[in-house]
Amino acid sequence: MDKLKIGILGASGYTGADLMRLLAEHSHADLQVLTANSHAGKPLGEVYPHLARLGLPDLIKNEDADWSALDVVFCGLPHGTSQEVIATLPESVKVIDLSADFRLRNVDTYATWYGHEHRAPELQPSAVYGLTEHYRDDIKDARLVACPGCYPTAALLLLLPLMKAGQIYPEDLIIDAKSGVTGAGRSLKEQNLFSEVADALHPYGVASHRHAPEIEQELSVAAGTDVLVNFTPHLIPMNRGEFLSVYAKLGAGADARSVRETLKSAYADEPFVQVAEEGVIPATRHVRGSNYVIVAANEDRLPGRVILFSTLDNLVKGSSGQAVQNMNVMFGFDETLGLTQQPMFP
Amino acid sequence: MDKLKIGILGASGYTGADLMRLLAEHSHADLQVLTANSHAGKPLGEVYPHLARLGLPDLIKNEDADWSALDVVFCGLPHGTSQEVIATLPESVKVIDLSADFRLRNVDTYATWYGHEHRAPELQPSAVYGLTEHYRDDIKDARLVACPGCYPTAALLLLLPLMKAGQIYPEDLIIDAKSGVTGAGRSLKEQNLFSEVADALHPYGVASHRHAPEIEQELSVAAGTDVLVNFTPHLIPMNRGEFLSVYAKLGAGADARSVRETLKSAYADEPFVQVAEEGVIPATRHVRGSNYVIVAANEDRLPGRVILFSTLDNLVKGSSGQAVQNMNVMFGFDETLGLTQQPMFP
Amino acid sequence: MDKLKIGILGASGYTGADLMRLLAEHSHADLQVLTANSHAGKPLGEVYPHLARLGLPDLIKNEDADWSALDVVFCGLPHGTSQEVIATLPESVKVIDLSADFRLRNVDTYATWYGHEHRAPELQPSAVYGLTEHYRDDIKDARLVACPGCYPTAALLLLLPLMKAGQIYPEDLIIDAKSGVTGAGRSLKEQNLFSEVADALHPYGVASHRHAPEIEQELSVAAGTDVLVNFTPHLIPMNRGEFLSVYAKLGAGADARSVRETLKSAYADEPFVQVAEEGVIPATRHVRGSNYVIVAANEDRLPGRVILFSTLDNLVKGSSGQAVQNMNVMFGFDETLGLTQQPMFP
Amino acid sequence: MDKLKIGILGASGYTGADLMRLLAEHSHADLQVLTANSHAGKPLGEVYPHLARLGLPDLIKNEDADWSALDVVFCGLPHGTSQEVIATLPESVKVIDLSADFRLRNVDTYATWYGHEHRAPELQPSAVYGLTEHYRDDIKDARLVACPGCYPTAALLLLLPLMKAGQIYPEDLIIDAKSGVTGAGRSLKEQNLFSEVADALHPYGVASHRHAPEIEQELSVAAGTDVLVNFTPHLIPMNRGEFLSVYAKLGAGADARSVRETLKSAYADEPFVQVAEEGVIPATRHVRGSNYVIVAANEDRLPGRVILFSTLDNLVKGSSGQAVQNMNVMFGFDETLGLTQQPMFP
Repeated sequence: MDKLKIGILGASGYTGADLMRLLAEHSHADLQVLTANSHAGKPLGEVYPHLARLGLPDLIKNEDADWSALDVVFCGLPHGTSQEVIATLPESVKVIDLSADFRLRNVDTYATWYGHEHRAPELQPSAVYGLTEHYRDDIKDARLVACPGCYPTAALLLLLPLMKAGQIYPEDLIIDAKSGVTGAGRSLKEQNLFSEVADALHPYGVASHRHAPEIEQELSVAAGTDVLVNFTPHLIPMNRGEFLSVYAKLGAGADARSVRETLKSAYADEPFVQVAEEGVIPATRHVRGSNYVIVAANEDRLPGRVILFSTLDNLVKGSSGQAVQNMNVMFGFDETLGLTQQPMFP
Repeated sequence: MDKLKIGILGASGYTGADLMRLLAEHSHADLQVLTANSHAGKPLGEVYPHLARLGLPDLIKNEDADWSALDVVFCGLPHGTSQEVIATLPESVKVIDLSADFRLRNVDTYATWYGHEHRAPELQPSAVYGLTEHYRDDIKDARLVACPGCYPTAALLLLLPLMKAGQIYPEDLIIDAKSGVTGAGRSLKEQNLFSEVADALHPYGVASHRHAPEIEQELSVAAGTDVLVNFTPHLIPMNRGEFLSVYAKLGAGADARSVRETLKSAYADEPFVQVAEEGVIPATRHVRGSNYVIVAANEDRLPGRVILFSTLDNLVKGSSGQAVQNMNVMFGFDETLGLTQQPMFP
Repeated sequence: MDKLKIGILGASGYTGADLMRLLAEHSHADLQVLTANSHAGKPLGEVYPHLARLGLPDLIKNEDADWSALDVVFCGLPHGTSQEVIATLPESVKVIDLSADFRLRNVDTYATWYGHEHRAPELQPSAVYGLTEHYRDDIKDARLVACPGCYPTAALLLLLPLMKAGQIYPEDLIIDAKSGVTGAGRSLKEQNLFSEVADALHPYGVASHRHAPEIEQELSVAAGTDVLVNFTPHLIPMNRGEFLSVYAKLGAGADARSVRETLKSAYADEPFVQVAEEGVIPATRHVRGSNYVIVAANEDRLPGRVILFSTLDNLVKGSSGQAVQNMNVMFGFDETLGLTQQPMFP
Repeated sequence: MDKLKIGILGASGYTGADLMRLLAEHSHADLQVLTANSHAGKPLGEVYPHLARLGLPDLIKNEDADWSALDVVFCGLPHGTSQEVIATLPESVKVIDLSADFRLRNVDTYATWYGHEHRAPELQPSAVYGLTEHYRDDIKDARLVACPGCYPTAALLLLLPLMKAGQIYPEDLIIDAKSGVTGAGRSLKEQNLFSEVADALHPYGVASHRHAPEIEQELSVAAGTDVLVNFTPHLIPMNRGEFLSVYAKLGAGADARSVRETLKSAYADEPFVQVAEEGVIPATRHVRGSNYVIVAANEDRLPGRVILFSTLDNLVKGSSGQAVQNMNVMFGFDETLGLTQQPMFP
């Protein structure tokens, strides 16, 4: 079988790096174009020495790439820019966007949370929300897939089946999230310096994080009513990994066991989603570097409530891994191709 | 003025080490007895090289100490053992217990959560709960002070004034806690090995942590009704520091601003409790190594709710620092003596 | 082609875990027996939750395994025990030993450094030193391969070609080594607790580390004279990775450039050994999680000397990865099978 | 006694922050001026929340400060700028420079290593090298003290007495150094991002670090001959701490014991320098956050050589602490004033 001709827009970020790491193990991937405007002209090994041996093409500018020869492009550009650049790509190229630019179905919601008008509103209606396990059929036929944010991926894989089944109540949903520092990308900000982050922790984006409306959008569809969530992320001194502790009200007749069973039956055939057995507590190290997600349900001492957990690697299932999974769906490959690497522990 | 003659029972734990670090800067402290049964006979510098230069006495066995010559004893023994040993101390010696042994007023609650009958029930009624800011007058005259657990200290300094003032509602209180690894002490457990903890995180003690009943005991007093809380702690790859994110229902007429004002007026004269201004997000690094606590209130997007934060250093205000603060109260010293070290950042 | 039937003796250590991680991606590996005496009877997922999904057999005792049905056994038992157990294995089973038990050709040297008489001296003469790149031909035909220690692997891949070529002088060789904490294994020792190691560093095994005689043994062969080295390892607060800074006297006519060229020509056809270009400084993160080694030569300001670097992942090329590489050689597979995973960064 | 009126030039760096932390415990310090050109106008608590409670003045621009009212100024500006600004200060103000600008006695050497002509050559002759233990008498009467770099402090406290006593040989001196990330300051560089540094290590400034000529300058004076050293620093994933492993040739008749005795007699009366007993291995955690230095000598298996260690906290004894120590000397205070904080471990 022929290999896919692949490009990466914005290859110098951490998601770009992890895409290349994963695609190196993908038997049908041929990386032909890597762009990174601020590093154009450099060999990849200068920006990412750990990938130097892969023999990949040098980094070039977005505008210098020949997109027409490609089958698919991953886009890892900043929000706003992604919309602009994707709008210029030839129709023949499929697009898997890892940015936030096409995740919100309502362009007004986008404008409210991202601070500027949508720059490719004509593309938005055709964009498919790329939460693979829940939109697989749509992804199959999509030209433009908007991969979910890392937090929404963890939250929705946990909550969508429960909301749909009425196992949890759409009000008073509290999502306390913890993330490693790669979630902030490779950009130069004081708050991401080692000495600011190490041996310390703090919340950020309190009641204002842009992943909240994304979570709410999908939960509202599932609940059939507008859902508002408390979403409070915290920065943890670790490289990778994301952990959500969700405090929810049980639906009528539900308990931790029925919640667990609902999750098990929703994901029985899914290769990447695992439901922890009763009493087993997930940890970020159980999925580090892999495309796996673990979800769990625990009894709460508070009556009528349940404690839910969800953990994934923000750079893999929360970003590049899910993007590759979507590529596999879009091109008819085995969905696990390139994604079977087991977690790395320690 | 004469110096206090001080002993430490169980000096080889991390709380013992931090007690010695703090008391080295206390102008009225004279450490005369250090016990550590498993290290008896060793110079302190062999167990804690960083304290070798202090010229402190060698470690001895509990049973070899002459307690009668001392003014005050800090007790850092494991639960159960603390009760047994404290019961044997001469009445003339004041006792500041850092273990969990005298925190729960009801010995039946103790038995339920700690798995054995209380071993000094006759002492329990005279024990004063050592949350300095809220029990200062009782501590002044106490012979036996039971210092609160690290999590309860962080939780109660935040929540007691709010509960008393009706600013928050006593139901549906969710306390998502994060702690550095020193909270687990220096004991040899696989889950505390560097390679298990580093670059990773996980919850523990889900719906079963022993600090929950302690928090509930004090909140119930404040609320005038039985309070049950969701308390879910997480282990974070850092040495020191504790951070509580509390999700609460606002009382009638309350909002984030009134909550903040309630905290400010409660702690206006307190040297160690600080209330963050609107929009200022606390972080564990803002208190690392110090006896300070920072509490904060933020608006929630969910109507009728508020997001609360509390952070402290678990080994200082959460343990050894508060113990020294209590000693200062018990002996009529300036309450800040030995506790003015500023946080160490980075 | 049939799959190899494989056993792991001592599967509950970190090297065991990384063996399973790597073999999961090996198309010809079938793990049939996993032993771990202290965890016998447990499912693997209880000891290593991150590997739970692989469907591997439960852990059993060494003495309960049926070895005769296997093709090859990896041995990760403690030193001394490895000798005892390997001596009982059927002759038909090939053995790849990851312990130190068969690395030293001279059983008296073994006794001196390991504190007890060799327990299988009759096997020692047939053991092949498993430094793949330098003993490939012997490994092909070996029944018992003694995989080098992690530090010796890093040191010898760097120094053997240089010593053989007279590019460095066999005296005054100083090897300052730095290692992540997984090098110490999963055993319960105070010095491996998170709070002892994090945000700190110290040397250990100063002038007494057991990897010194192993390095000396192989360098002596290459130099044709007895070589003594200064080997000073340091414990670094990271999970994986090993970095050697070697300070050497240049041989007659040699300089940093000729040293680099010697390394390049020695490893021109090697898939896992890379020689850094002039001015490129290696880092542990460039090899994390992979079987790659990077070696480098830099000019020293001291005349007649050269600064050499070598870095690898101690659990992969320094242990489990090299073991799999040796298995590939012993059974005629492509040497890179199961070992093509790229480094994980960040 | 009156308090000293103190200013800090460049207060927004990590050394500025640690100066403020230390001076908060100094009974004769009154911080009156804090400059930080890029943060001018901000309250200190906005830049360093952990110091917000100290009630210090707001940050202002260098040019807006009234220097004439001050007794002493600490200067933490970048190299080059320090020279320019210090040259403008009134003669009545004593200056303690923490930058590299006045450390090299020879302005040509400065130009060679720092890439520009010295901008205050007229001041250089009067500058005293501020290695307190070795230049105490000169510091007493100095107006301008040039505090040593962090690495030179660790290296020279270890090596100066040995070089003077002929215990080590001035050739072939190899200094393998390891440092925490605060050594790189708070500036925004990709290589200092958490995700680049965490769980990893690498050397930097190989054969080109600017602290080498500084070490050589002082060793040459001690040896009475030009000394060249190999100085190879490595970046370690920790906040604070510096560790030097020095590999030296023993002088005639010397051995590890005589080296240790030489160090002990050199530092017998020094409050901050400690010599480790035989067999005791120093660690960065033994000095973290404190002004102490530990030096040690160990036997090498290589004949005629010795293994030396030196460790300190780069922000304290390696920078701000030594600066305060020098202030104490310059103004006739007890040298330990404000510097008695014990190390913080864990």
